[in-house]
Amino acid sequence: MDTLRLKLLIAYDGRPFRGWQSQATNDAVQDHIEAAFAQTIGEKVSVQGSGRTDAGVHALAQVAHADVPVDRLSVAAWQGALNNFLPAEIRVMRVTQAAPEFHARFDARGKIYTYRIWNAVYLHPLEIGRAWHMPSPLDLDILRAGAALLEGKHDFAGFAANRSTGYAATETVRTIKRIALTGRRELLTLRFEGDGFLYKMVRLLTGTLVRCAQGRAELSLLSELLAAHGSRKTSFAAPAEGLYLTRVLY
Amino acid sequence: MDTLRLKLLIAYDGRPFRGWQSQATNDAVQDHIEAAFAQTIGEKVSVQGSGRTDAGVHALAQVAHADVPVDRLSVAAWQGALNNFLPAEIRVMRVTQAAPEFHARFDARGKIYTYRIWNAVYLHPLEIGRAWHMPSPLDLDILRAGAALLEGKHDFAGFAANRSTGYAATETVRTIKRIALTGRRELLTLRFEGDGFLYKMVRLLTGTLVRCAQGRAELSLLSELLAAHGSRKTSFAAPAEGLYLTRVLY
Repeated sequence: MDTLRLKLLIAYDGRPFRGWQSQATNDAVQDHIEAAFAQTIGEKVSVQGSGRTDAGVHALAQVAHADVPVDRLSVAAWQGALNNFLPAEIRVMRVTQAAPEFHARFDARGKIYTYRIWNAVYLHPLEIGRAWHMPSPLDLDILRAGAALLEGKHDFAGFAANRSTGYAATETVRTIKRIALTGRRELLTLRFEGDGFLYKMVRLLTGTLVRCAQGRAELSLLSELLAAHGSRKTSFAAPAEGLYLTRVLY
Repeated sequence: MDTLRLKLLIAYDGRPFRGWQSQATNDAVQDHIEAAFAQTIGEKVSVQGSGRTDAGVHALAQVAHADVPVDRLSVAAWQGALNNFLPAEIRVMRVTQAAPEFHARFDARGKIYTYRIWNAVYLHPLEIGRAWHMPSPLDLDILRAGAALLEGKHDFAGFAANRSTGYAATETVRTIKRIALTGRRELLTLRFEGDGFLYKMVRLLTGTLVRCAQGRAELSLLSELLAAHGSRKTSFAAPAEGLYLTRVLY
């Protein structure tokens, strides 16, 4: 059967789903997208994302690829067909035809995540589920200095949660090109651009940075964690709801 | 009993509530705030808002006043006490002591509303309940020209829904200082600043402007509606979910 490869750009509100990665319970974003493919053409289609996002993590532009039969829908018709079967909290924002060898995960040369923090005593009602509510004051100079410390090529094993298998020693080196802090009044945004991120890494980086900016840890903790090559790990993970997969770079 | 007058700045997500104004069913924003006062001091306290918002309409800064006994909580303690009893979708963002004669509704000399439109075939998942989804293309030049036409002092009776009582002829003249259109890509925002707005007026202005920008009505419709002094009325109301009470001017 002749197939062609589709590249999907996908946005979702992370709250109703158990993350990106397929679950036995079928309530992951990937499950919903595969179900929409099956409902459209009555055949199983595998969808490969650029990487996992955890339950509650949002995506502005997750990327995935899928092979579909050439003789069914036109490339242009897929977006409407899939959205027709998807819950409103998941939307295929663009569908294009990719080269047959394009791979959403292996071809990604970087990613951008943003992390939103609502830094005021009371959480704004329109930020529920969309930002981390941090009621205690943060020292923005420390936040900025900490972010600068984390930029560059490092072994981020100390900022990775173990998956069941764990990582080999050489697999935990990543380069963070830039961590940019922007903010207006109560809303702070950290924007992480890097060649790749380990499991829960952005949440662990954010949580540990915030811990320093609260004055509850020294900035030296960051350097120590980078130098420890995973023999010491941070446990300060920022919650999922503030995190957005913003862009996958190819 | 000696009382002092509090001025409250209130934000809410409009979706879970039946609008601002007290309902027999007790599920309006005002009901929740009055209940929070009663739970705090065990006494009925009346809360007067700057004006109604309909079910589904959001507020970034609704203003209300309330008289409370002087001998109970300090002014500074009220914010925490009220938020403690309020649902997370309603937050008192600031409490200050007002002059005894301050009146949230009668002293308001103007209001700013913003209306958000998501103008693309598919609604972004993070805009559900927060913007009007308008899939057909809008002519932004027409939108801008129409907005300019509506600015100034006019009889807006043609852009007012009748409440049970209706309005007397002289009560429907309002001045719109400015209607500003801003937009980046799919998200368009109309910002209305005026000395006051009639019932459903911002939604009727937006709905009729959009109708013109879709090419389904001529801009002359706007002038005709303004000239008709209510003998002709528009029925194109934009939905509640795109509307935000952004500021009350005193």
